Amino acid sequence: MKEPYIFELAMDVRDYEVDAEGIVNNAVYLHYLEHTRHEFCRQAGFTFRQMHAEGLDPVATHIDIHYVRSLGLGDRMMSRLWLERKGPRFVFHQDIFTPGDELVARATVEIVSFEDGHLSRGERLASAFASYLK
Amino acid sequence: MKEPYIFELAMDVRDYEVDAEGIVNNAVYLHYLEHTRHEFCRQAGFTFRQMHAEGLDPVATHIDIHYVRSLGLGDRMMSRLWLERKGPRFVFHQDIFTPGDELVARATVEIVSFEDGHLSRGERLASAFASYLK
Amino acid sequence: MKEPYIFELAMDVRDYEVDAEGIVNNAVYLHYLEHTRHEFCRQAGFTFRQMHAEGLDPVATHIDIHYVRSLGLGDRMMSRLWLERKGPRFVFHQDIFTPGDELVARATVEIVSFEDGHLSRGERLASAFASYLK
Amino acid sequence: MKEPYIFELAMDVRDYEVDAEGIVNNAVYLHYLEHTRHEFCRQAGFTFRQMHAEGLDPVATHIDIHYVRSLGLGDRMMSRLWLERKGPRFVFHQDIFTPGDELVARATVEIVSFEDGHLSRGERLASAFASYLK
Repeated sequence: MKEPYIFELAMDVRDYEVDAEGIVNNAVYLHYLEHTRHEFCRQAGFTFRQMHAEGLDPVATHIDIHYVRSLGLGDRMMSRLWLERKGPRFVFHQDIFTPGDELVARATVEIVSFEDGHLSRGERLASAFASYLK
Repeated sequence: MKEPYIFELAMDVRDYEVDAEGIVNNAVYLHYLEHTRHEFCRQAGFTFRQMHAEGLDPVATHIDIHYVRSLGLGDRMMSRLWLERKGPRFVFHQDIFTPGDELVARATVEIVSFEDGHLSRGERLASAFASYLK
Repeated sequence: MKEPYIFELAMDVRDYEVDAEGIVNNAVYLHYLEHTRHEFCRQAGFTFRQMHAEGLDPVATHIDIHYVRSLGLGDRMMSRLWLERKGPRFVFHQDIFTPGDELVARATVEIVSFEDGHLSRGERLASAFASYLK
Repeated sequence: MKEPYIFELAMDVRDYEVDAEGIVNNAVYLHYLEHTRHEFCRQAGFTFRQMHAEGLDPVATHIDIHYVRSLGLGDRMMSRLWLERKGPRFVFHQDIFTPGDELVARATVEIVSFEDGHLSRGERLASAFASYLK
């Protein structure tokens, strides 16, 4: 847990996110991760809606996620992230913990940005994220 | 079952649609109904994508659904519909059955269409649906 | 807005809940309604998880929802409810508003409860809800 | 495309799976992958429901997915897989293509199986999959 997190969001499991095995379905974690990134962006001063309106569309190109511990009905989680830039790619390091700091899931999410429909070099995202980039 | 159905679609429950109670979550039925309407439209010769590209956006204004019998893991369903026009509104009568013709859910879905962002009188949808309207 | 609401929950639209038309998909509202009911239950002192563990499974039998105004990216909502009992059925009156108190959706959701797999007369739910029933 | 696929499933994008950017949301691909695995299991003679009833619950521990090309409204896909065993882990290699064989997404999904709540060595799954394992 020495990861240099720069953002944290508390979330509750919603009952409809739990599947027939009694645990949160693996696809739902990608929603948690996306929602965390978007809330981070909102805190950073720009929303998904604004970006979309300005022709800037971030798109995930690679997600790697390890499921360490299951979440179930009524559980709460702490979702944390930090990010780094690798040329045109932005790598979000995103981990989800129980309130007691036990690791639930560990993910990296790579994002590129399209500008007016074309793959960009990421300059606009980089300037938006400037104060958060490692 | 004397309803004057004009379209039928077979669908399988996907396991992730089943919730912790072991049954398909009630919200998922609205996906089944929507998917059935869109497949019906596709058969009628126009797709959701085309309509959207032409500035024609159907929007649901009222859904009434009775859940009669639950679907669970591995179940299959037959989704049927017929429609009528009531002025600017199009009323889809949509029922879902088991393969053995037992009623699972009975719904009516009212749709209006927006054209270029404004509520329309439904003339374009009506001409598209002409041969299917009761 | 003279409805005798007894519970209110603020929620934000999550970006993945918005569909290709730029508005929250109609099925997602059923998730909002369900999440509101479950949070209400939690405040009332019993969780969905507890109920399920005790063999008590509430099931929706009828949902009627009017979509009055669309929600989109970045929107916030206030979700309110009150409930009444009609024999074995519990009717949740659930309305969603913008933060400025404009009506977004108006719904009634009828619930019955299964106890150990059998339809019940609702006595256990009624005693749990006693102080909230009109 | 020299991957030794042993199963293929054709699927259509459902319109509600497309998000505000006009493309299938990244979480939905995990549903496609799961549905493909479950249909593969069904063909192999055992269903998710059976397994669950017998106390055998496969759980994903690691998913790695590259998004190469976007799917949108009205698109169709071919979802293919092959699998290998690595001790207690089963690695599903799952790729999604356009009907014209252009790569859409490339994933590996690692599964372990719980038997009666305990992590198993995978012997039961291995015998079920025996004729499919590389």
